[in-house]
Amino acid sequence: MSQKLKNEELNRLSVNEFKAAQKQPVVIILDNVRSLNNVGSAFRTADAFLIEEIILCGVTGTPPNKEIEKTALGATSSVRWTHFKSTLEAIDYLKLKNYKCYAVEQATKSIALNEFKNSGEQLALVFGNEVYGVEQEVIDTCAGVIEIPQLGTKHSLNISVSIGIVLWEILKPSR
Amino acid sequence: MSQKLKNEELNRLSVNEFKAAQKQPVVIILDNVRSLNNVGSAFRTADAFLIEEIILCGVTGTPPNKEIEKTALGATSSVRWTHFKSTLEAIDYLKLKNYKCYAVEQATKSIALNEFKNSGEQLALVFGNEVYGVEQEVIDTCAGVIEIPQLGTKHSLNISVSIGIVLWEILKPSR
Repeated sequence: MSQKLKNEELNRLSVNEFKAAQKQPVVIILDNVRSLNNVGSAFRTADAFLIEEIILCGVTGTPPNKEIEKTALGATSSVRWTHFKSTLEAIDYLKLKNYKCYAVEQATKSIALNEFKNSGEQLALVFGNEVYGVEQEVIDTCAGVIEIPQLGTKHSLNISVSIGIVLWEILKPSR
Repeated sequence: MSQKLKNEELNRLSVNEFKAAQKQPVVIILDNVRSLNNVGSAFRTADAFLIEEIILCGVTGTPPNKEIEKTALGATSSVRWTHFKSTLEAIDYLKLKNYKCYAVEQATKSIALNEFKNSGEQLALVFGNEVYGVEQEVIDTCAGVIEIPQLGTKHSLNISVSIGIVLWEILKPSR
C-alpha cells in the first residue's frame, strides 16, 4: 500500500541548502501583477522548481508582506527576488546577462507550450497582470511568446496556475 | 511581431458549446478542500482543459458562492459539478462507472507525474485538503498515487497549481 509521507520524510532542502544549491537557469518576471496571493504562489512554485530568481516589476507587491506570506508559506526566504520599476528595464538587464526572454500570453505567432524546446539556455519568463496580461511593448521586446493551449470558455488560466504549468513543462525531469 | 489576442479573437467556446462538446474523460475530486479560492481556481482550470466533472466532497465549498466565483470567473456555469458527503462514496461511485482513481500526493510507491502514462482510460484524480492532503483511507482505495517531483524547501505545491500541472501533463496536445 502507498503511505503518505510526512514532511521530515520528504528530505526537502533547508533554506541554507536551497541558497547554496545549483539553480535552474530560469528567472520569472511578474509584469504589474496586482494580487498578492498570486505573488505568494509564484514564490512557492519557484521554490518547488529551484528557480534562480523572481523579478517583481511595477505595481507588483514585494516581501515582506503578510498577504504574500499567506500563499508563499516561507518561500520568500528561500527564493532570491528583486524589484524593478519597469518591466522593460528588467528585460534590458536580463538581456545584458544573456537571458532569452519569453512572454507567456495569447498572441499571434506564439509558440504552443508543448512545442517549446528548452535547449538549456538561460530563460526569463514574463507573466502579466491579471486583467491586462503582459503589456504589448513588453511582448515587442521579447524573443517570442509562449502560449498554453486552452479549450474552454474563459479567456485564460489564472496566473499562478500558468506559472506552475510553464515551469513544470520546461523543467520537469525527462523520462 | 507577435500581437496580443483579444477575447473575441481567441474563439473560445460559449457555455452552451462547452456543454455540448466532447469532454476529456477526466474527473477531478476535491477531498475536503477548505479554501474557496482553490475551489474557484479548480473550476477555471477544469474549464480550460475541457474536463468532464468536478466532484466536491465533504467540507469543500459548492457553488453558488461569491468567494468561489472570484477565481472561477464564470466557470461554475460551464463545468459540471456534484457534491458527495464523503470522498470514499465519490470514489465508489466512480469505480462503478469504470473510472481509475489516482490520488495526487507525496507517498511511498508513488508514480512520478512525468512517468505516468495516460492510456486514454477514464481517470479520476483526487486532490486533498490544504493542510492534511488526501486522507490515507482515500489513498488506500485508489489504484495508485501520482506525485509531482519537487526540489525546494516547502512540503508541497499549492493545490490550484498542482491541479493545473497534473491536468496539463495528462491532457496536453502531443507534439
